[in-house]
Amino acid sequence: MITPVRYEDDRLMILDQTLLPGEERYIEIKTKEDIWKAINKLQVRGAPAIGVAAAYGVYRAVRDLETENFSDFAREFHWAKEYIATARPTAVNLFWALERMEKKLLALEDGLCFEPSWNQELDYIKEELRKEADAIRSEDEAACLAMGEYGLSLLKKGMGILTHCNAGTLATAKYGTCLAPIYLGQERGYEFKVFADETRPLLQGARLTSWELSQAGVDVTLICDNMAASVMKKGWIDAVVVGCDRMAANGDGANKIGTSQVAILAKEYGIPFYMFVPVSTIDLSTPTGDQITIEERRGGEIYEMWYQKPMAPAGIKTYNPSFDVTDHQYITAVVTEKGIVYPPYTENLRKVIEQK
Amino acid sequence: MITPVRYEDDRLMILDQTLLPGEERYIEIKTKEDIWKAINKLQVRGAPAIGVAAAYGVYRAVRDLETENFSDFAREFHWAKEYIATARPTAVNLFWALERMEKKLLALEDGLCFEPSWNQELDYIKEELRKEADAIRSEDEAACLAMGEYGLSLLKKGMGILTHCNAGTLATAKYGTCLAPIYLGQERGYEFKVFADETRPLLQGARLTSWELSQAGVDVTLICDNMAASVMKKGWIDAVVVGCDRMAANGDGANKIGTSQVAILAKEYGIPFYMFVPVSTIDLSTPTGDQITIEERRGGEIYEMWYQKPMAPAGIKTYNPSFDVTDHQYITAVVTEKGIVYPPYTENLRKVIEQK
Repeated sequence: MITPVRYEDDRLMILDQTLLPGEERYIEIKTKEDIWKAINKLQVRGAPAIGVAAAYGVYRAVRDLETENFSDFAREFHWAKEYIATARPTAVNLFWALERMEKKLLALEDGLCFEPSWNQELDYIKEELRKEADAIRSEDEAACLAMGEYGLSLLKKGMGILTHCNAGTLATAKYGTCLAPIYLGQERGYEFKVFADETRPLLQGARLTSWELSQAGVDVTLICDNMAASVMKKGWIDAVVVGCDRMAANGDGANKIGTSQVAILAKEYGIPFYMFVPVSTIDLSTPTGDQITIEERRGGEIYEMWYQKPMAPAGIKTYNPSFDVTDHQYITAVVTEKGIVYPPYTENLRKVIEQK
Repeated sequence: MITPVRYEDDRLMILDQTLLPGEERYIEIKTKEDIWKAINKLQVRGAPAIGVAAAYGVYRAVRDLETENFSDFAREFHWAKEYIATARPTAVNLFWALERMEKKLLALEDGLCFEPSWNQELDYIKEELRKEADAIRSEDEAACLAMGEYGLSLLKKGMGILTHCNAGTLATAKYGTCLAPIYLGQERGYEFKVFADETRPLLQGARLTSWELSQAGVDVTLICDNMAASVMKKGWIDAVVVGCDRMAANGDGANKIGTSQVAILAKEYGIPFYMFVPVSTIDLSTPTGDQITIEERRGGEIYEMWYQKPMAPAGIKTYNPSFDVTDHQYITAVVTEKGIVYPPYTENLRKVIEQK
């Protein structure tokens, strides 16, 4: 199975997602400059995957470093961390993972005895840093697996499942959020038939979702976003699964543009609509979806990118929101790593967050 | 204003729609080979526009022809007509227009006196053929104008209007079907704000609708198909107007893929949805939309056409229907050239067709 970030045989390898789906190439990361570039150029993308990459990246950047003492090592580590943190200025998981790594390093100092030798201590420090990166990865993987199990409990063998955008293994340590139950089902002979919306304008569904599911042997069919009603009407879809970028306290969920349409169509055709939302994505300080600011991007994303020439007249006005908010009334259930949340969301989302 | 087919100053000119929106180039048609190629290569498209082009095309092909007598001329005309008819084997308007032109020619023979000279008679015949082509064009234009007036009566100044695909002037003699009220409104200071779905996979909305409306000075904004719910939710859309490829007796209407989604979203947001349907498009012998066969096209239309490389993994399975059927329950009114039809459609569509 594909993993976007691998640390194996003492080598840090990152799947270059900018080459997908045409080419599956892993690039080796050896220096802080390498990891900075991989994050900055979106060779690794998706908040959890970026966190994992940054953790291993900062470890790898200092792994071969030899210093005279702890404070020299810690200073070098800090510089590497600060440098990597500038790769994508708004990526919360990036800062979070780097901070956690540094905290781990600083906590180690107290336990050190510098006997029998600093060199042995240094090896121990490096080993502990690698273990911390491993932990970040495995915690994310465990959260995805938990969402996968909860999600799978909502699905039945042979179901047709529609998804939009990419909340898959490529965006996380492994398994993804809303694609996790698909992978678990695949391992257990569920034989899902997945339909992937291409997800205009940036085609995450065509480029990433249909690729990663094909690689795992899942039966996946690519459609244009405007064909979702057709496949629903034909009776081919039994459930819709999508990810979430931010969920308000009342259960309104912002996700990739087009998600809210799929939810409305699902309601019209009586199909359950499940949103997969890690607990960290639920923002109780935002009362409803109306308070979520939607990023608008340049129109060229819509009309450039074509094989011969722009596919709209020069100077055309566009509206290109990156996300939309799915009203909570269309969401059948919210799947978190701590369990499945049903309406009323204002009450039940708070409960799941407050649970230990 | 743009017209896809022009006969002016004794020259037949066709707007090459394959170059749109990058280049606005009219090609001159002089021979039967020229018109065959223009229709075959989709330089002119849209059933009514093809009929108009074929009528002028067959006239132009024989316009400079000198023969000894009527039967020689009629034979040459017949050959030209039969040749042009092979340009697109399933285009009903193509055959219909060519048949009508030949019928006109044959009807002329009886009235001819061959005095004072055959040469003068021949000039008269050619003049009558041109008038018949003019009539085909002006009848289509009149039907579009009538749909435009009826459509406009449903709209108010300053409204936001969403459309899908292209049922505009480029597909007809002039004005289009569902875009006709937009053009009439534009002439009368209605200041509509039009939103054009790009209409994947072939982008008729981006390439054609947004181009022809911009050319006419209409305020048009291009969006991806998956953004329709967002603009509706923002309150920017007061009405949806779309064309129709075939309407069943119960009012179910087949149109470009994605139309049925827009209709469902419009219902959800309480926005009226108007389908523009020339009477010739209503097929009373088809009881419901379930009996309409939907053409499925090759998947390459979805994942080729991109600027660098295919945007889906090699061998990906696709589903690529060209049309979908909008259930009559989502259609607020059907606009024909004979008037506006409201539910119950089974009863009222029959009435409008049977009306003189």
